[in-house]
Amino acid sequence: MNAEIIGIGSELLLGQIANTDARFISQQLSQLGINVYYHTVVGDNHDRLLEALDTAYRRADLIITTGGLGPTMDDLSKETIAEYLGLEMTLHQPSADHIRRYFNERNRPMSDSNLKQAMFPKDAHILPNARGTAPGAIIEKDGHIFILLPGPPNELEPMFAEEAIPYLIKKSSYKISSRVIRIFGMGESAVEEKIKDLLLKQSNPTIAPLAGHGEVTLRITAKAEEDEDISSLIQPVENEILKRLGNVVYGFDDERLETVLVDLLKKHNMTLAIAESCTGGHIGDLITNVPGSSEVFLEGCITYSNDAKIRRLGVSSDTLMKHGAVSRETAAEMAEGIRRTSNADIGAAVTGIAGPGGGSAEKPVGLVYMAVADRVGTEVQCHRLFGDRLRIKQGTANILLNWIRLRLKGAKVSDN
Amino acid sequence: MNAEIIGIGSELLLGQIANTDARFISQQLSQLGINVYYHTVVGDNHDRLLEALDTAYRRADLIITTGGLGPTMDDLSKETIAEYLGLEMTLHQPSADHIRRYFNERNRPMSDSNLKQAMFPKDAHILPNARGTAPGAIIEKDGHIFILLPGPPNELEPMFAEEAIPYLIKKSSYKISSRVIRIFGMGESAVEEKIKDLLLKQSNPTIAPLAGHGEVTLRITAKAEEDEDISSLIQPVENEILKRLGNVVYGFDDERLETVLVDLLKKHNMTLAIAESCTGGHIGDLITNVPGSSEVFLEGCITYSNDAKIRRLGVSSDTLMKHGAVSRETAAEMAEGIRRTSNADIGAAVTGIAGPGGGSAEKPVGLVYMAVADRVGTEVQCHRLFGDRLRIKQGTANILLNWIRLRLKGAKVSDN
Repeated sequence: MNAEIIGIGSELLLGQIANTDARFISQQLSQLGINVYYHTVVGDNHDRLLEALDTAYRRADLIITTGGLGPTMDDLSKETIAEYLGLEMTLHQPSADHIRRYFNERNRPMSDSNLKQAMFPKDAHILPNARGTAPGAIIEKDGHIFILLPGPPNELEPMFAEEAIPYLIKKSSYKISSRVIRIFGMGESAVEEKIKDLLLKQSNPTIAPLAGHGEVTLRITAKAEEDEDISSLIQPVENEILKRLGNVVYGFDDERLETVLVDLLKKHNMTLAIAESCTGGHIGDLITNVPGSSEVFLEGCITYSNDAKIRRLGVSSDTLMKHGAVSRETAAEMAEGIRRTSNADIGAAVTGIAGPGGGSAEKPVGLVYMAVADRVGTEVQCHRLFGDRLRIKQGTANILLNWIRLRLKGAKVSDN
Repeated sequence: MNAEIIGIGSELLLGQIANTDARFISQQLSQLGINVYYHTVVGDNHDRLLEALDTAYRRADLIITTGGLGPTMDDLSKETIAEYLGLEMTLHQPSADHIRRYFNERNRPMSDSNLKQAMFPKDAHILPNARGTAPGAIIEKDGHIFILLPGPPNELEPMFAEEAIPYLIKKSSYKISSRVIRIFGMGESAVEEKIKDLLLKQSNPTIAPLAGHGEVTLRITAKAEEDEDISSLIQPVENEILKRLGNVVYGFDDERLETVLVDLLKKHNMTLAIAESCTGGHIGDLITNVPGSSEVFLEGCITYSNDAKIRRLGVSSDTLMKHGAVSRETAAEMAEGIRRTSNADIGAAVTGIAGPGGGSAEKPVGLVYMAVADRVGTEVQCHRLFGDRLRIKQGTANILLNWIRLRLKGAKVSDN
């Protein structure tokens, strides 16, 4: 099976957004072993969409469209595809009911144009949209499969994962599976150096390194006939990589540093509280993104001003005067202060210069002190980060989360 | 002039990277008034690239390719385009010298394959690459213009800005400009309803609505002859839209709710402190993403546990017992408590159920109370949000930021 992805929307051609939908779908299809030979982007224009459909039809047997399923006049994906395939449009009653419910629940008036979203080419298989009003659809005709998806990534991605992938797996004659190993604290080339021989001799499974968002991932992908055991292909390679990389591997597949940390805290039956200066709430935000984090995360203090550091955490004004807010001493007192005042098992703190202003030759933008206090004592680390304000906040948060993870895994923090 | 952008590289089709080059070039071309009708992505494959070139040639007169200019065997953009146009390849001596110098300066050995990067179709106009070894090229033939650019954004973007744009401006007879109006608190269809007549009669300027990330934007784009005043085309339409939409317009172009709020606080010389429960630091994170926010944002308390609400903010345990943590009363006491303990002019608070657990029939997932306290008094709002945990946190944060913005713009909060 070979595929073409057609992105439909003038906002793509105007450069208002990048075509991240095509990226997401391509990644997913590559894991299923389906070749993607072309991406096309076309605007909200009937004639040019028809031409793009015809071009794709001639060179692909799986055609996935994204966007153009909205309620407005310039949303014309379904209508144009039905016209191209010579199919009639009919109302899909369950979708109409869903849309009506969606508006009722939100106490918003529904306009007639919204019912356009429940119209589909005859005999289409409808894909429900849990996050919005535009359902997707799968249409099979003359050996070609069309999959119509909504444009917004938060609607497209779950619909593709939950509806399209199971459908495509049924069509496939072999199965494919991936395991992602997530690494923090080691650069891409250092990781590649450690597993160079494995990378050179790879065939099935393949090993694909990828760097981004401050971390490195290794994706191990194996292909097998229906009844073969695919995990027996992946497991030995995974074990060998884990043996070589050790503690820099923090998790697998969709795990994040914060999910791993929350799990570890639960396992050790320990609680955490955070005092943030330069990260301004970003660390608390990440931790509380994890469902169930309230079991282990007691509270955070975003002590942006010196006054707040003194009042909330008991940092001494002497320390602030003598060493400054961005210093080893202040970080330590913040961590000890948040631990003492919150009664958490672990108190952690960061203070630094996120920029773009506030830097000096002695204390440049990107300088960050962080501290962790627990019943064993207090430790401080100093880091120098690079990039803009957001990169510095994100990098700081990840380094701290990883540091607490390593302490919980090591001998330094004993169970209560 | 109408354009097509062809991205060349298997890494795009595998979803390893998103096609941000096409986004960048599209933005730039739209500002030059050049229509982009299609993007295409094709892999490092000779036959499929030929087919993509032929398709583009038939429907565009400006064809811009990105990628495939490297030294390795699978980089075949120039060779395939020369073949398609029936042009001979020749060595461009200044480029060969530049590449030799580039390697000498870095003390790196140059392989013969690097000289491949100095080979170009005969009569091509060469675009020097200050950041790498792959020059670009412009080729004109039979009324078509081909612009060949390297794939890495840090090489492509300056080359496009410094070489391709001046070339295209000479070819163009008019200029183009856009203004983005940002709207919060009104849905896309309601916005369209209010300006339906403007949308129907649009031609120059055009008005393009776009919904996403909980907000709606309207992009007004005008085209003018070289010496005409383009702002005189945009301004009347902008004024009319502002008049009809009123206070739901929060900003323009790249502004965000948090940047507008920080600016307003500075203008009114007022300070803010936040108490967050269900958002877990997300609001503080957004505000502190704004450079200079430390002037007006004093601190935040992420009071996740009941104990923290009592201890940090002085919420009464009676209130928590009687009404629960997610209640009108608790939200009000949190806002008053953070204002009192921080000495901020405005204290704001949110408490709600972010899910997926913790909901009940009476207090479902997505129920959020928020409060704002200032010297005039305390107000509480109740909202019901939908979506997963992250959407609920993000939606809550935006509603609160917008609410404080509206209070600062209105008569309810007077200047100090």
